[in-house]
Amino acid sequence: MADLTGLFAPERVAVVGATPGEGSVGRAITANLIEGFSGEVVGVNPNYGTVLGVECVDSLADAGEPDLAVVVVPPGIAIEVVREAGEVGVENVVVITAGFGETGSEGATRERELREVAREYDLNLVGPNSLGIMSTSVGLNATFGPDDALEGNLSFMSQSGAFITAVIDWANDQGIGFNDVVSLGNKAVLDEADFVEAWNEDDGTDVVIGYLEGIEEGREFIETAREVTRDTPVVLVKSGRTDAGAQAASSHTGTIAGSERAYEAGLAQAGVLRAESVQELFDSAQMLANQPLPEGESVAVITNAGGPGVMSTDAVGDSRLSMASFSEDTLERFRESLPAEGNIYNPVDIVGDADIERFADALEAALSDPNVGMALVLSAPTAVLDYEVLAERTVELREEYDKPVAACFMGGERVAPAAELLREAGIPNYFDPARAVDSLDSLARYREISAREYDAPTAFDVDRERVRELLDRAEERGDNRIGVEAMGILDAYGIPIPEREVVSDPVEAERVAESIDGEAVMKIVSPDIMHKSDIGGVKVGVPESEVYDAYEDLVARARNYQPDATLLGVQIQEMVDLDRGVETIVGTNRDPQFGPLLLFGLGGIFVETLEDVTVRIAPVSESEATEMIDGIDAAPLLRGARGREPVDETAITETIGRLSQLVTDFPEIVELDINPLVVTPEGATAIDIALTVEQ
Amino acid sequence: MADLTGLFAPERVAVVGATPGEGSVGRAITANLIEGFSGEVVGVNPNYGTVLGVECVDSLADAGEPDLAVVVVPPGIAIEVVREAGEVGVENVVVITAGFGETGSEGATRERELREVAREYDLNLVGPNSLGIMSTSVGLNATFGPDDALEGNLSFMSQSGAFITAVIDWANDQGIGFNDVVSLGNKAVLDEADFVEAWNEDDGTDVVIGYLEGIEEGREFIETAREVTRDTPVVLVKSGRTDAGAQAASSHTGTIAGSERAYEAGLAQAGVLRAESVQELFDSAQMLANQPLPEGESVAVITNAGGPGVMSTDAVGDSRLSMASFSEDTLERFRESLPAEGNIYNPVDIVGDADIERFADALEAALSDPNVGMALVLSAPTAVLDYEVLAERTVELREEYDKPVAACFMGGERVAPAAELLREAGIPNYFDPARAVDSLDSLARYREISAREYDAPTAFDVDRERVRELLDRAEERGDNRIGVEAMGILDAYGIPIPEREVVSDPVEAERVAESIDGEAVMKIVSPDIMHKSDIGGVKVGVPESEVYDAYEDLVARARNYQPDATLLGVQIQEMVDLDRGVETIVGTNRDPQFGPLLLFGLGGIFVETLEDVTVRIAPVSESEATEMIDGIDAAPLLRGARGREPVDETAITETIGRLSQLVTDFPEIVELDINPLVVTPEGATAIDIALTVEQ
Repeated sequence: MADLTGLFAPERVAVVGATPGEGSVGRAITANLIEGFSGEVVGVNPNYGTVLGVECVDSLADAGEPDLAVVVVPPGIAIEVVREAGEVGVENVVVITAGFGETGSEGATRERELREVAREYDLNLVGPNSLGIMSTSVGLNATFGPDDALEGNLSFMSQSGAFITAVIDWANDQGIGFNDVVSLGNKAVLDEADFVEAWNEDDGTDVVIGYLEGIEEGREFIETAREVTRDTPVVLVKSGRTDAGAQAASSHTGTIAGSERAYEAGLAQAGVLRAESVQELFDSAQMLANQPLPEGESVAVITNAGGPGVMSTDAVGDSRLSMASFSEDTLERFRESLPAEGNIYNPVDIVGDADIERFADALEAALSDPNVGMALVLSAPTAVLDYEVLAERTVELREEYDKPVAACFMGGERVAPAAELLREAGIPNYFDPARAVDSLDSLARYREISAREYDAPTAFDVDRERVRELLDRAEERGDNRIGVEAMGILDAYGIPIPEREVVSDPVEAERVAESIDGEAVMKIVSPDIMHKSDIGGVKVGVPESEVYDAYEDLVARARNYQPDATLLGVQIQEMVDLDRGVETIVGTNRDPQFGPLLLFGLGGIFVETLEDVTVRIAPVSESEATEMIDGIDAAPLLRGARGREPVDETAITETIGRLSQLVTDFPEIVELDINPLVVTPEGATAIDIALTVEQ
Repeated sequence: MADLTGLFAPERVAVVGATPGEGSVGRAITANLIEGFSGEVVGVNPNYGTVLGVECVDSLADAGEPDLAVVVVPPGIAIEVVREAGEVGVENVVVITAGFGETGSEGATRERELREVAREYDLNLVGPNSLGIMSTSVGLNATFGPDDALEGNLSFMSQSGAFITAVIDWANDQGIGFNDVVSLGNKAVLDEADFVEAWNEDDGTDVVIGYLEGIEEGREFIETAREVTRDTPVVLVKSGRTDAGAQAASSHTGTIAGSERAYEAGLAQAGVLRAESVQELFDSAQMLANQPLPEGESVAVITNAGGPGVMSTDAVGDSRLSMASFSEDTLERFRESLPAEGNIYNPVDIVGDADIERFADALEAALSDPNVGMALVLSAPTAVLDYEVLAERTVELREEYDKPVAACFMGGERVAPAAELLREAGIPNYFDPARAVDSLDSLARYREISAREYDAPTAFDVDRERVRELLDRAEERGDNRIGVEAMGILDAYGIPIPEREVVSDPVEAERVAESIDGEAVMKIVSPDIMHKSDIGGVKVGVPESEVYDAYEDLVARARNYQPDATLLGVQIQEMVDLDRGVETIVGTNRDPQFGPLLLFGLGGIFVETLEDVTVRIAPVSESEATEMIDGIDAAPLLRGARGREPVDETAITETIGRLSQLVTDFPEIVELDINPLVVTPEGATAIDIALTVEQ
């Protein structure tokens, strides 16, 4: 793990390319750095002795061993400056300079060089093409943006510099502060995983937020973030969710569009709270940064306004939260204190004439109820209610009971001073009850993430050597779509396949048919005959008594079709009873960012027409495999819907787990579909398989 | 249609129950009325000569023929006051008084009396249990709320008085104004349909918005709103969407929870834009109130910030909008004017160093492109850009090209003056690009509604008499679940049923079997034997040669099972070839608010497990029936998915239409399920039916 102390808390910073030129980036950064930074600043520019009153030296070697170099020189020189930084022992570099990977092939070459130099000297390098970084705890603003950020406990990374500029201007107005801010730029060296990891160790950061257009090292990100999100919430907007958005992202930062399905799965497995809009990003972040996690998911709504109370209840219904059921003691307390036209059940309607005492009493009763995980204080303006006093009491009670509280004091100017009091105490106030409920929902979402146990993927006992051999054999043949051997590959990894044997005479065929239950499926085995069914080379439902004749017939058809074909024999396979089973599909393909993706769904129309599938990045744990099954809409069909016997779900879980191990062990498998995997009450059997390897 | 001129533009208003008592509702209303009202105010209270300087008379008869009486007396007297109003010719009454239907059975009785009196005198009565009404065009504030509303072109009705108070305080702060505001109260006489209709005729109202918890006269509302929404957008929050919300609504206003499915269908059929939150309600309303409707659904995004550009593109992907494809001319213009690192395709990235001229040029190029329906101006703050000037140019261009424009000038304090300029010109500014896109989406949604052609339900040629007879016969028998005759009812309404005949000897059975294609289904007909399959009273797939024996066997089984059962014979029915067909369900049940609800879905798991159904309120037009088919997720299965021949969808449309006519003609049919309706490429056949009548 990279130690980023020198990046975010440097004692001495050199601006390479410092200049007094009006309107220049070099000037803007120097000016921002001078203002408020607790450490020392030195300029590097052979053309000046001082810049904006700061000492300016000729080269980094003369800069007095800075911890951080901010590079604002033209792209052609930037690489040499970075090399010099490495030579003289500067460990942290922020490359503001643009003109690298974002500008075409020449730039891409330059960026590869830059990365190599940084790796050679083991530099912590941010950028290139970055707006810069900020660290409010030491007053560091090493960006060329127009504003300083307020101090706070959010750390923020963004793949868009313009978004940082916009957010900081807005956040200053909203009173939202940051600990560190990083404009990721082209992420030549340090990327989102590095910052997520570093901020997890940082006492000043309570919540990590970010805007990303792509995650190149998807698997690495999942592994890092999964650990981090146990302790530190990570909330991200990952744009390019839609086809149009992905295209726009590609044109903006050259991000290769990974599949949205892979991102969705990967971010969920990583424990990241994904926000779909800027509003959701900050609503979630503020709540997570300032309030405790709830014990449960039940909400009490205390309101003097019936209609908005109903709206908030709808919002709870739309979320993962539930309306709390009060204990008998609490109901009794409400019965005594509320007027008859009120409502003692949740949402608690304390009626429009409620004064501050009735409001505070009701809130206290709710918060002291062990059945209540969190509360929403929802109020319309009335003549008898002073919003500022209500805000004070709300803040006191939130702290006393240490349960999350959201506020929806409705109104405009009348609310402003109360909203300010609430905000200072970490209680955001929204006009819209639904937004207040959503902010509580993000606490519940994160509570679930922080509480989840991560079980490592099961290591099944498998025959890896056999698969190696089968794949090598296919490679020798130059096949990249594997037919017959693919079943052997599943078998080697313990995935049940129908009992089957390849025989080379009709008597042997009868012997095999005897050993299997019921009817048989018989199939010509020949590497020279591709479309076996087309020539009548497949027979289904052959009873034992007809196996001898069927053998002879199949061989005759093959000979007839292609006299010189190599005949390896006839495969006899047990018939799987589809009537008692459900056809499922377990598949995998490879995502450029995240590696092997596992897919599960029911067969036929469910996958093809309804797209009712779940996806996870491999390797998956047993609980993740279980989630894949639970996640499809048609899951009830596995569980005895319509009077059928429930199927053996653990057999599916195990198949997913074994397939996960297979595709993780053999990266050359780029696509594999078990279609169908028939699941009965007794187990699962892979009936057919298509496998593609990359050679 | 009620003429509400005297309600919203009275020349003289009487406050019955005017009083100077501090903190009283009567005082609050009198005070609000005095301030700013262009007409005359008179108090009615025998205890005072004047109230707050206003003349006070003993009774309404002495009040000088007011157009409007506002009633603030106790509930026991209120009815008499309303009667007096009727007697002396006051046409409009607002009953503020509470203690009616919302308070239990005594109150409900009182409310019925109030309604009768109002009907007797044909009064326009608002309330009871109302906060009052406002009409800004005449300076009328006949509420006891704390604030006056600003003038504007929204008219607003709400079933929650507290919500009105909250909204007006907030709207005053946001600069949002209203034409009329109505607190609906218990809706004893005037309800949402009346106001929607009146505001459609009102030049001062451009958009109708509202908060409703229930719509009692659902069918009437649909009919009224369907006409209104062709010209005037109606945006509503209908709460109680979720189970918890419906329960809360019931406890708040005593609203009987209609089914959410019925509301969803009814509001859509009515052309109402349904908002799911307060934020969405006002974002949509402001856009609709101030901007033209777009020609198409394509959006151009012009931005100096790549990241937010990608976010806005995702938001477009989530909406019904599409990213505009520019004409070659426009692209050429961008190629000439934009720097190489920009993006000439949509979202148009004019790059961070763009000055006002580059921004305005790009916006103009986009707006002048016939492929562009609307535009989003999306900007991060930069040193070279003056937001106020950008706002001015945006306003000019929006007006010049008369296309909708949304703004997302990101930032905080820096944006405020520009946002104010934009707001004054009817362009809302949002920090979140997604919210700006959603506001454009509401214009596209309404454009679709205003453009839709309403085709009246088809009047099919049916045999109404025969159904009347069959239903009467069932009533005589005291049956409310109808078996055998139900197929006759479908037949009478032209819904295809299998060819069938009831016969009473085996020779006749053979004759019938000859006349039908293929195998037969044979079934005992006896009112005394309920579960025919259990006793072997049903035979499926009987070939012609076995019909004679099958007849004898069926009769023997029936006799054996119950010797004294009345045997009406044996039904012979053609077998429908399920292999080429898709099983669907067409059903109906009766909603307390909206009347008969029609439901369509595919059979089996699709309805039961996946709940993949669409619902509409009957009667439906042909295009509504088509929408029902298009609306299910599994629709591709009707259209040749998985290599099957597409089925005859028009046969489904017609069946829905005929069923719609049936349940509209016979309100005593409370439930009817055709399950399955088998649809093949050649047509549809109702195989089984369950029908319940209310007697």
